[in-house]
Amino acid sequence: MRFFSDNAAAAHPAVLSALAAADRLDTAYDGDAWSKRLDGAFSELFETEVTALWVTTGTAANCLALASLCPPYGGVLCHREAHIQVDEAGAPEFFTGGAKLLLIDGDGAKLTPDAVEATAAAIRPDVHQVQPHALSITNATEYGRVYTPDDVAALGEVAARRKLGFHMDGARFANAVAHLGCSPADVTWRAGVDALSFGFVKNGGMSAEALVFFRPDLAAAALYRRKRAGHLLSKGRYLAAQILAMLEGGLWLDNARAANAGAALLAQAAGDRLVHPVEANEIFLRVSADEAASLRASGFDFYDWGPGEARLVVSWDQAEDAIRPLADAIAAL
Amino acid sequence: MRFFSDNAAAAHPAVLSALAAADRLDTAYDGDAWSKRLDGAFSELFETEVTALWVTTGTAANCLALASLCPPYGGVLCHREAHIQVDEAGAPEFFTGGAKLLLIDGDGAKLTPDAVEATAAAIRPDVHQVQPHALSITNATEYGRVYTPDDVAALGEVAARRKLGFHMDGARFANAVAHLGCSPADVTWRAGVDALSFGFVKNGGMSAEALVFFRPDLAAAALYRRKRAGHLLSKGRYLAAQILAMLEGGLWLDNARAANAGAALLAQAAGDRLVHPVEANEIFLRVSADEAASLRASGFDFYDWGPGEARLVVSWDQAEDAIRPLADAIAAL
Amino acid sequence: MRFFSDNAAAAHPAVLSALAAADRLDTAYDGDAWSKRLDGAFSELFETEVTALWVTTGTAANCLALASLCPPYGGVLCHREAHIQVDEAGAPEFFTGGAKLLLIDGDGAKLTPDAVEATAAAIRPDVHQVQPHALSITNATEYGRVYTPDDVAALGEVAARRKLGFHMDGARFANAVAHLGCSPADVTWRAGVDALSFGFVKNGGMSAEALVFFRPDLAAAALYRRKRAGHLLSKGRYLAAQILAMLEGGLWLDNARAANAGAALLAQAAGDRLVHPVEANEIFLRVSADEAASLRASGFDFYDWGPGEARLVVSWDQAEDAIRPLADAIAAL
Amino acid sequence: MRFFSDNAAAAHPAVLSALAAADRLDTAYDGDAWSKRLDGAFSELFETEVTALWVTTGTAANCLALASLCPPYGGVLCHREAHIQVDEAGAPEFFTGGAKLLLIDGDGAKLTPDAVEATAAAIRPDVHQVQPHALSITNATEYGRVYTPDDVAALGEVAARRKLGFHMDGARFANAVAHLGCSPADVTWRAGVDALSFGFVKNGGMSAEALVFFRPDLAAAALYRRKRAGHLLSKGRYLAAQILAMLEGGLWLDNARAANAGAALLAQAAGDRLVHPVEANEIFLRVSADEAASLRASGFDFYDWGPGEARLVVSWDQAEDAIRPLADAIAAL
Repeated sequence: MRFFSDNAAAAHPAVLSALAAADRLDTAYDGDAWSKRLDGAFSELFETEVTALWVTTGTAANCLALASLCPPYGGVLCHREAHIQVDEAGAPEFFTGGAKLLLIDGDGAKLTPDAVEATAAAIRPDVHQVQPHALSITNATEYGRVYTPDDVAALGEVAARRKLGFHMDGARFANAVAHLGCSPADVTWRAGVDALSFGFVKNGGMSAEALVFFRPDLAAAALYRRKRAGHLLSKGRYLAAQILAMLEGGLWLDNARAANAGAALLAQAAGDRLVHPVEANEIFLRVSADEAASLRASGFDFYDWGPGEARLVVSWDQAEDAIRPLADAIAAL
Repeated sequence: MRFFSDNAAAAHPAVLSALAAADRLDTAYDGDAWSKRLDGAFSELFETEVTALWVTTGTAANCLALASLCPPYGGVLCHREAHIQVDEAGAPEFFTGGAKLLLIDGDGAKLTPDAVEATAAAIRPDVHQVQPHALSITNATEYGRVYTPDDVAALGEVAARRKLGFHMDGARFANAVAHLGCSPADVTWRAGVDALSFGFVKNGGMSAEALVFFRPDLAAAALYRRKRAGHLLSKGRYLAAQILAMLEGGLWLDNARAANAGAALLAQAAGDRLVHPVEANEIFLRVSADEAASLRASGFDFYDWGPGEARLVVSWDQAEDAIRPLADAIAAL
Repeated sequence: MRFFSDNAAAAHPAVLSALAAADRLDTAYDGDAWSKRLDGAFSELFETEVTALWVTTGTAANCLALASLCPPYGGVLCHREAHIQVDEAGAPEFFTGGAKLLLIDGDGAKLTPDAVEATAAAIRPDVHQVQPHALSITNATEYGRVYTPDDVAALGEVAARRKLGFHMDGARFANAVAHLGCSPADVTWRAGVDALSFGFVKNGGMSAEALVFFRPDLAAAALYRRKRAGHLLSKGRYLAAQILAMLEGGLWLDNARAANAGAALLAQAAGDRLVHPVEANEIFLRVSADEAASLRASGFDFYDWGPGEARLVVSWDQAEDAIRPLADAIAAL
Repeated sequence: MRFFSDNAAAAHPAVLSALAAADRLDTAYDGDAWSKRLDGAFSELFETEVTALWVTTGTAANCLALASLCPPYGGVLCHREAHIQVDEAGAPEFFTGGAKLLLIDGDGAKLTPDAVEATAAAIRPDVHQVQPHALSITNATEYGRVYTPDDVAALGEVAARRKLGFHMDGARFANAVAHLGCSPADVTWRAGVDALSFGFVKNGGMSAEALVFFRPDLAAAALYRRKRAGHLLSKGRYLAAQILAMLEGGLWLDNARAANAGAALLAQAAGDRLVHPVEANEIFLRVSADEAASLRASGFDFYDWGPGEARLVVSWDQAEDAIRPLADAIAAL
């Protein structure tokens, strides 16, 4: 059974149904009935007026956001292991026109206000050095850690003080909110976030992510940037419909809760082997090469994550009885 | 009834079925079983070894191709009304890193070898002027004209002589091939084309286009560029499956033939009103404002195309009996 | 004798003297005493507070200005034969991050408000087309025509109405002002210009041009862009000193008047052969190939400018007795 | 007395004389007699056929080189404290079109083959991560350390094995060669270097640096890139003449030897306070805040370099008797 990534899972049946329902002639691009409902749906969810754009990848969402917040000659403060730094093939540099990622350390790929402040303060405020214009965090982080509303607000204060745009990569935003049990607003705009990449694909979607702007002034240019990056699909309704299906009745939260619950089950079995507290749907285990081999021999697929570590990710569609055997196998190591 | 664009039509049922068939866990990105079949399927179709990448838009396909063929300091020869120049929001400049489009005139948005040669020859071969590195044509053109294999080969000779990469924007490639009745190979690589944007979305697809490289050496870098542009979807199988469904049993050709036939019906009715010969699925009519208004009053939607002209596009799913009323209305003007 | 370009002439002795005077240790980059005097010197000249940056080429000045006025996804309205379009090797695209030049026709490379308005109005205000964000004119133009303060103000009104940044390429600004006899302010900021590339190198300078911002808010980012483009010389005082020497006592105007006077002499001799009215230091002649050959045989160097035309440029250091022989030769054709 | 940077010093009298000698009309850009001698002069110096371009800054030289060696989607391996990373305001990202600098640690800002190899090996060879395409080192380093021919050759082997372009930032190349006493060829192309930024401005020049290509195939595109970056001065002879004056009779080596000798004098006085061995013209001292203040009170200017450290740089024109007082002051701390 596969635990190597939540982005390889099937799509939720509601998503496929939504595609079928949208399968009729409508205005092209984002002029259709489904696309036009996005702003409203997200505004309701976030309890404030937002502008939301569909895109097909988290990389596109992240990098359109960064380009909206940082000029080509500026820098983006982020964690050294942020997805935008290590797994997007230079897309941030491409979309921003050459901005520099300014890297910060932190346990579990989490940034602290002190670390952000220290990195920013170490940059000479002269034209020879790239000045920070934006801050980007990932919630849940690349190690499955979750920023609380207070965590985010503390970073938001640094951003405000230093006039930094504030972006949240929410590839697993649903898992973070499911863990926190808070309003999506609390952990985003109420804490100072300007733009959110709201992920659906890892959470039961097929090919649609949302880029949500809490500052509507940023959205106008982003629409041009989306088109210019080849990301304005002509039959946009098939993307909008997927997202609306995920928002409908809180499906996005249900799916995330299911995945988190599966990860919690594994975490319980793992005990001292856990490298990081498990707060979302990823778990990182200390395992020897032999132990990893033994798990794989039992039919469990996952990624090695540096020497002596393994990453396992639970997907929205893996029910408890699919996970229990792995939990047992881990406990038995 | 809507005749304003083929990119607003529904998707073919086979495409939706393919999505359902692909709806199970598989390797992420383009490591899945469907994506891996693309090279083979297109190599068979083109009777030579090719490399094919899925992307979600024609703009992405075109501009990845251009970036593969032209350095940032170079230029791309193309028609003044080419889609890449007038309808892609500067995407060519974005993907290439600032290359310049070098514009050429020509009836029906078609380029002739003489016009290409004259434009290239007028550029001083010194560092003050942007030198051409690539040639891009659209087949069928933005005015529904089709380049024959001989037409393309004549341009291919200019490209070869001047060491220009040769790209074909085939947003309506299927309509062109349906019109020509030739092998897809004859009008592409056998005529000197290096890269083809093979469109499916206007022809019954949902969200998948193909970028086909006839020079496999170009593909390796393009894979990095695709990821860097945020165009590597994590569940790529849903794109590959769409394309395979369109290729299966020649569905792409059947759909294009149907659309072309509908346009031919309208062309016959239009007679002297035709601005361009109708060779694909678009027709351009001379109509007065009153005549246009009268057609619209009868329920036919289309775009005005400059003063005194209208553009009507037939989609794959518009059967003869859906088109006949418009043909009659045109004839009755 | 060489009449092919004013940018091949020697530097004025005062410029060389200024280099010698600046030849001592001082703060690096633009922190030295000379660089710090630039803002004041230009503010006085323009009768308003301006910010001025030295750069080494007109291309750098132009393109830093354009990058300050136009985002990567925007367009710059300019003449089809503007230097930025035909002689800067794609530098505008490079500095702006891929903005598109939107080309306009006009006699003598001059733009009219109507032509600018018509071009802007023909662009669909949707995300598929590049929207104009800036307007750039050249004064004197590439054909030696001069925009009057009224000409510029009329364009400034279009720019203001359409919210376009307004740039003036003043590679031969001195020649324009010498012709007009107006205050430099009248033909720039009072007429709506936001940024001026103020040329010195064609007018007796050695290697220093000035980029003058009439909107100081634009300058802060431009300082970063200058460094980022490798244009922040470490011994900037040698550039600032050149510019100050040119401004001192109105040397820039004296030099331009001398060059204009020489061109006027040639214009008088040329009579009906003139392609454009001679308003600065360039003259464009109708000459047959035989006539051009005969002039060259007499020792006069110049550029052919399309079939049947020749361009002759008078430099600041060509005295009347150096020009008279050419005038006689032209008259004798 | 100022020890804060060698790039604030005066120009050598021979450089000013060369400007005067070049002060007459000649062909514009790099078509003049002086510019045409550059390839020959550098080919002689390097004992092989090279192509050399003048530019006005080390940043321009470095970044044109990097753009020649690394595609926009690639990465450049360099030291974490390399000038291109910390002091060029993102110019590498700008010139390359968004390539990523891949940072490596190492004492004294020197890279070892093992460290380069380890960094390269840690990058997954898939499209999600930026792949290294070039290696850049600084000789002498930012901490005044010198790579020997053997050091460079060992890195050249890594570069060759991994098919990386190899660039040397030689802002203080003269000081390195003066220290080594070797042929310039030994520490560059014979050791695998493809392109060298050969600095003159810190060594008695005024405004001219050279970019030397040991692979002539790289130069053709670089000429276009130079123009496109606004770095093709119209009166290029004033740059070429400076460089030729520096090469004439080995002035570049004499100046560097003088500066190195001054630094050696300070190093002797500094003893245990040295943070790095002194091999060029920079010395880094451990000093308390009080000690630094005391030196400044005695009239010596320099930069603090992190807490408890000071950087002092000796310039080409600081004779022994100008340095002796500082040496004495350091010894007396």
